[in-house]
Amino acid sequence: MFTGLSAFPLTPLRDDEFDEDAYARLVSRLARSGVDSITALGSTGSYAYLDRAERSRVARSAVQHAGSTPVIVGIGALRTSLVQALADDAQEAGASAVLLAPMSYQPLTDDDVFGLYEDVTADLSIPLVVYDNPGTTHVTFSDDLYARIAELPRVASIKIPPVPSQPAAARQRVQDIRSRIPDHVGIGISGDGSAAVGLAAGCDAWYSVIAGTLPAPALAISRAAHTGDHAAALAESARLQPLWDLFAQFGSLRVTAAIAEHLQLVSTPSLPRPLRGLDADARARIARVVDELDLAA
Amino acid sequence: MFTGLSAFPLTPLRDDEFDEDAYARLVSRLARSGVDSITALGSTGSYAYLDRAERSRVARSAVQHAGSTPVIVGIGALRTSLVQALADDAQEAGASAVLLAPMSYQPLTDDDVFGLYEDVTADLSIPLVVYDNPGTTHVTFSDDLYARIAELPRVASIKIPPVPSQPAAARQRVQDIRSRIPDHVGIGISGDGSAAVGLAAGCDAWYSVIAGTLPAPALAISRAAHTGDHAAALAESARLQPLWDLFAQFGSLRVTAAIAEHLQLVSTPSLPRPLRGLDADARARIARVVDELDLAA
Repeated sequence: MFTGLSAFPLTPLRDDEFDEDAYARLVSRLARSGVDSITALGSTGSYAYLDRAERSRVARSAVQHAGSTPVIVGIGALRTSLVQALADDAQEAGASAVLLAPMSYQPLTDDDVFGLYEDVTADLSIPLVVYDNPGTTHVTFSDDLYARIAELPRVASIKIPPVPSQPAAARQRVQDIRSRIPDHVGIGISGDGSAAVGLAAGCDAWYSVIAGTLPAPALAISRAAHTGDHAAALAESARLQPLWDLFAQFGSLRVTAAIAEHLQLVSTPSLPRPLRGLDADARARIARVVDELDLAA
Repeated sequence: MFTGLSAFPLTPLRDDEFDEDAYARLVSRLARSGVDSITALGSTGSYAYLDRAERSRVARSAVQHAGSTPVIVGIGALRTSLVQALADDAQEAGASAVLLAPMSYQPLTDDDVFGLYEDVTADLSIPLVVYDNPGTTHVTFSDDLYARIAELPRVASIKIPPVPSQPAAARQRVQDIRSRIPDHVGIGISGDGSAAVGLAAGCDAWYSVIAGTLPAPALAISRAAHTGDHAAALAESARLQPLWDLFAQFGSLRVTAAIAEHLQLVSTPSLPRPLRGLDADARARIARVVDELDLAA
């Protein structure tokens, strides 16, 4: 479950309510596509904006429509006791694993972050993915902190931020992390534009934003990398550069939501306010890139 | 209500539940002290960590125990619809005004932030304080954004981050903001160590962390500034420098919680996990500063 491609679907809203029909279609489509796992309620799944009841509904819907594809459920929240409640809910929903980012409002110390993972893993019966996403959590993991947390029970994988684009530096980065954590803990790359380099550098998995909406191009990269054909994976990633450029300019969530809206996979607007959708010019550029790269195939 | 000293009490927890008895004592003490307003559920009041039901209880308790002192209630949340619900709850609780920080998980654009204030003020019947707290929200307000938001109905005050420590630069900063906003919108300083300088520079109010737990020394500064005796206000602030140094090192929330715990105003630990209290060394230093500066008087 912690190797290959994990697809992060959007959690579409409609009139500020969870659009369960659209979500069921997104998840069923992912299950049919052959992704290795589905991560519900990642950052792309707007977990941080949804309340406990909504998140329980989303988790149950994901498990129901994923069929035999394992479902990982995001359980991040600002307060430890809520994270623990969300972990219970995810397990009751039938999640195969949970994903935990250390959300912050007051800046967290390393001991706060370690304590969060310690408190949560103490009561957990399924594996946990450590979610390092400094752009949203404003927590910076040191390698020492990775090492401390990776020793905790149930920790199965670490989702790391983009690695350096230069191949030797990327390999060194992955090797440095791996030398600090137990063998049974995997490393997954995030930052879609960095995925092919990360997989070539030895990451076990790709935690992918775009795969949650457009699984085909992500599977092309993931499968090539899995067979050791990193040249093909890098070539496909290079072909998608106009998409990665849009991610860099507008953020992967807003671009992916605009793609899903453009393809009418979800209704418009689908993001929770205060997040506004992109303007007409940006949407036109995105539609052009979707067409030119034949992403909707 | 938007001039003078606004005191931000802690929201103490006990076994991860709102400690209403301790809170009632804190708020009653503030009301007796003569502060000009009480802001419940500010950052110091851990608003970001509490759910809607808890926040409603806190708001009602604050209004109940504040007597004739006006109560401002923090309504920040990641999702606009929750902010709107919290605004309704605050009004039902009898709040005199609300305080709104643009919490973020996904980075917000200026249009997102403006849209949040536009959506929330559209349905509001009481004044609103704009809460600019970049250290926790990761939103940077430009002066243009202040100007756009200050034009919205119900906006009554802007709580700004620390001004430059040099008096002329501080005056210039306050004047720059004032030149961009309507006359009826006040400016309040935050960052307690910066308060005396901010008041001397022309701020109308001080939104104070320490006043929520130790109103006396904050009132000494605020009252001196109010009578135009800025030399006395600056001298009192300089006397408190060891306290400001602790704030800078450990963060004002953790230090203030440690003070309240040391003085047995609240039980230990009082902060919501994952926030850990300070270690024994830091607590010993804090207790020494409280004694040496005679802060508990």
